[in-house]
Amino acid sequence: MTQSIQPVIAGPIFNQDSTDFFYCRTPEQMSAPEVHAYIDRLARAGIGTYVSCGNAMKANFATEVWECEWSGYDPAGPDDQPVLRHLPPASVALTRNRLDSVKRLADQGVDYHREVLARCRHHGIGAWMSVRMNDVHGCMDDDNPLLSRFFVEQRAARKLRAMHRDRFWMDRALDWERPEVQEHYFKLVCELLNRYDLDGLELDWMRFVVHFRPGRELEGGKVITAWMRRVKTECAKAAARLGHPVRLGARVPTRPETARRLGLDGVAWAKEGLIDLLVAAPFWATADFDVPVAEWQRLLAGTAVHFTVSVEVRYQPAPEGPAQMISPALLSGLAATIRHGGADSVYLFNIFPTGHGLEGQWGADNYDAVIRALRDPATVAARERVHAITYHDVRAPGEPNGNALPATDLKWDQPSPGGFAFRVQTGPKPEAGRACVLTVEWAAPAPEATAVRTHVNGRELKLIATDKGVWRYAVPTALLEDEAQVVEIETPGKDTVVRLELQIAAKG
Amino acid sequence: MTQSIQPVIAGPIFNQDSTDFFYCRTPEQMSAPEVHAYIDRLARAGIGTYVSCGNAMKANFATEVWECEWSGYDPAGPDDQPVLRHLPPASVALTRNRLDSVKRLADQGVDYHREVLARCRHHGIGAWMSVRMNDVHGCMDDDNPLLSRFFVEQRAARKLRAMHRDRFWMDRALDWERPEVQEHYFKLVCELLNRYDLDGLELDWMRFVVHFRPGRELEGGKVITAWMRRVKTECAKAAARLGHPVRLGARVPTRPETARRLGLDGVAWAKEGLIDLLVAAPFWATADFDVPVAEWQRLLAGTAVHFTVSVEVRYQPAPEGPAQMISPALLSGLAATIRHGGADSVYLFNIFPTGHGLEGQWGADNYDAVIRALRDPATVAARERVHAITYHDVRAPGEPNGNALPATDLKWDQPSPGGFAFRVQTGPKPEAGRACVLTVEWAAPAPEATAVRTHVNGRELKLIATDKGVWRYAVPTALLEDEAQVVEIETPGKDTVVRLELQIAAKG
Repeated sequence: MTQSIQPVIAGPIFNQDSTDFFYCRTPEQMSAPEVHAYIDRLARAGIGTYVSCGNAMKANFATEVWECEWSGYDPAGPDDQPVLRHLPPASVALTRNRLDSVKRLADQGVDYHREVLARCRHHGIGAWMSVRMNDVHGCMDDDNPLLSRFFVEQRAARKLRAMHRDRFWMDRALDWERPEVQEHYFKLVCELLNRYDLDGLELDWMRFVVHFRPGRELEGGKVITAWMRRVKTECAKAAARLGHPVRLGARVPTRPETARRLGLDGVAWAKEGLIDLLVAAPFWATADFDVPVAEWQRLLAGTAVHFTVSVEVRYQPAPEGPAQMISPALLSGLAATIRHGGADSVYLFNIFPTGHGLEGQWGADNYDAVIRALRDPATVAARERVHAITYHDVRAPGEPNGNALPATDLKWDQPSPGGFAFRVQTGPKPEAGRACVLTVEWAAPAPEATAVRTHVNGRELKLIATDKGVWRYAVPTALLEDEAQVVEIETPGKDTVVRLELQIAAKG
Repeated sequence: MTQSIQPVIAGPIFNQDSTDFFYCRTPEQMSAPEVHAYIDRLARAGIGTYVSCGNAMKANFATEVWECEWSGYDPAGPDDQPVLRHLPPASVALTRNRLDSVKRLADQGVDYHREVLARCRHHGIGAWMSVRMNDVHGCMDDDNPLLSRFFVEQRAARKLRAMHRDRFWMDRALDWERPEVQEHYFKLVCELLNRYDLDGLELDWMRFVVHFRPGRELEGGKVITAWMRRVKTECAKAAARLGHPVRLGARVPTRPETARRLGLDGVAWAKEGLIDLLVAAPFWATADFDVPVAEWQRLLAGTAVHFTVSVEVRYQPAPEGPAQMISPALLSGLAATIRHGGADSVYLFNIFPTGHGLEGQWGADNYDAVIRALRDPATVAARERVHAITYHDVRAPGEPNGNALPATDLKWDQPSPGGFAFRVQTGPKPEAGRACVLTVEWAAPAPEATAVRTHVNGRELKLIATDKGVWRYAVPTALLEDEAQVVEIETPGKDTVVRLELQIAAKG
């Protein structure tokens, strides 16, 4: 087996929370070769760095300092045992399969992450671990296999983040200003750094984004920064032990000022030299098609940080509206804007081959082809791409909602009174000959087509098809600009746009 | 007369478009001593830099390269002469007074700006000129004293910015990608640099913010940057002529990414060393109480630029909602956040002693006291201050509306489902003993007071007064944080908040 050290961080970066492996396989399939085969498959697809997530509230390996995922679960027990009885009945079998699988592998003496990391090194893929810093999956349930004793104790003592409201799972996030919370996570981080041969450790602050009592975000951010300095020291110790660098990374929201206002000041961490990898990420509701990549680049100028943007598997144009899994064309479109903006790579979150069924939807070959294309900006830009309007699914407490969709014509609103305007990020200007189509979907009832005028960059478009509320316009390729297009729509009434996409055909 | 050279840029910076002087005085009052007295009065109030605006579409002095404001106007002619007949009848007398005044002064051989700048030097006040780069006041009228021949020709040739819509005055901005537009303004800039003894020249891109065909903003930004390099060269020539530095400044929108997306890339100009002064400014509808000052500071790190935030005279919590002139407490509150965020000074736009009637509303002594307090962050923070929620009145084409008010409880919205959250910038944490009151105004009908719970930074507040829809809460000073507070309001129904202010009493 070749042991290669990853000299720099390479993309695409693939985050795996281990559920894809354990949910989608039976206990009988558990073995070290099965783990290797999983990594081999991603290596063929061309990933550059693999980030293996070790925990939610519990660890998914045989930890000596936390609880394991299967702690409190009796594989031989009934479906109404304490940790299962509060689950929706439909999910009990899946949960048991996952717990049985993860336990079976550990019981064989196989450490899932050790195998994963070693196999990554074998392929020359960057081998990272990730820690979710405040995962609260299951927090509204009385009991649940996901709940840690530590969380349950903090909850019972009403020490969580927003107990004055206590209505929503994010209200039940741990309060990171509490020393016991900091020490709880520090233990796990130290275990990972001591236990594994890893190229880097990612702190995933996006699970679940809010770590402080409302209004305490800026003070709390100082606490996190101080805590990260301790982790950085531990990384240096691990590097000395391992004889190669152990880098530190962080996932933060997609907008720098929102991140700062949540106490997740990725720019400050980069400037201080605390981190080597910074991931701008949505929470979960939708991939974010309007990340200010250029602004991040400027803020990080002069640092050596590897900057990347995390793509989520979900595509949802408007909050509470319909959603679908991201398509190859949407992923290519988004990735083209990320790379065009200057990000060092594309980061994939929940973009699992089997989990969420992407291979099934896309086809296995297509899955590999999309992932591989992310390595090179020109390659991904040459694919069929769809550029869409979504929203930022993370806001700091009190930050106003700036969702672009659904858009209802306010008539008086500047800078486009009497209509709508959208700004769609589109990455590099497409080459001549690549057909472009604009799709606009209306809430019912759609307006009269003859009463609507639609412009891209000031040029009126020709409506080529209407299918109920979904209208398609031909867009002359020559009028497209680099980076972004402005779409203006004028309607006589109070109509509502619910979806807008700009499709660019693959390079001929 | 002492000639003193301004060594560095000093605040507060006071922009005067000359209308305050000419509108509020009669032609009979026009004289050089009257101009001096105006500056003397502002010097007493404590301004550090005076920025004298030389133009809208026409110049307000006896230009040799453009038209003067009184070009085309016949002082002896009737009210229905061509340039007057399209005005609202109520404004004809005021307009004539202004034109008669500005012409009378020039006819005496007095150059308004020359007198202004010299008097500033006499007082040791920084003496700047400002050029409005695309003022379109009056552009919807067939004729008007404000319209230049150049504009009328561009309009007739349909060469303006958004003729595909041509519905709103910003649609009729000049298109700065046109060489004739660039040369038109270059002539004026060169005249100012050759004609006057000035410490700096400000390019006011905020009049009227949009300078390109929709979608052409990023390409257009390159044109502006190239044009500014030419101006920088002319500044150097003027400095050589005058024997002291002639600095260059620019006004751009309050958010850096919005500015970039409008082609007004202040950060890039600062990094290139093109500018010495950068002013983040709203357009006009409202003073902006949530300028991301910390983010600007970071983006400008490593540059020598003087960064300042422009305060407008209008306070409007929500678009299309009620508005009022800014009060001393509102101005002190906003200035406290600007200085606390690290801006080098506070910039005043339309904050005229007589125009807009501020002296009348505030009292003359209070006007001076407020202006003087802006010199020192601690002094302004010690005053009674009111921190409010407003909105960003400038967006790039297609940027979604992120207005905080009016706020209607969406119930499902994160991160505060079942309620509202507001983030109020408040500058430095007030000292113990300074009383704090939160004001919340509801759209009618207001909810039942017993059904509403309101928290600041997670602590429930006591309602101390209700006056119809205006509710006041006592806020314990000890729970306030530095920089910003999170206000959360829970209501059972679909209620709407239209105004929110946090008042901090003066330091005892």
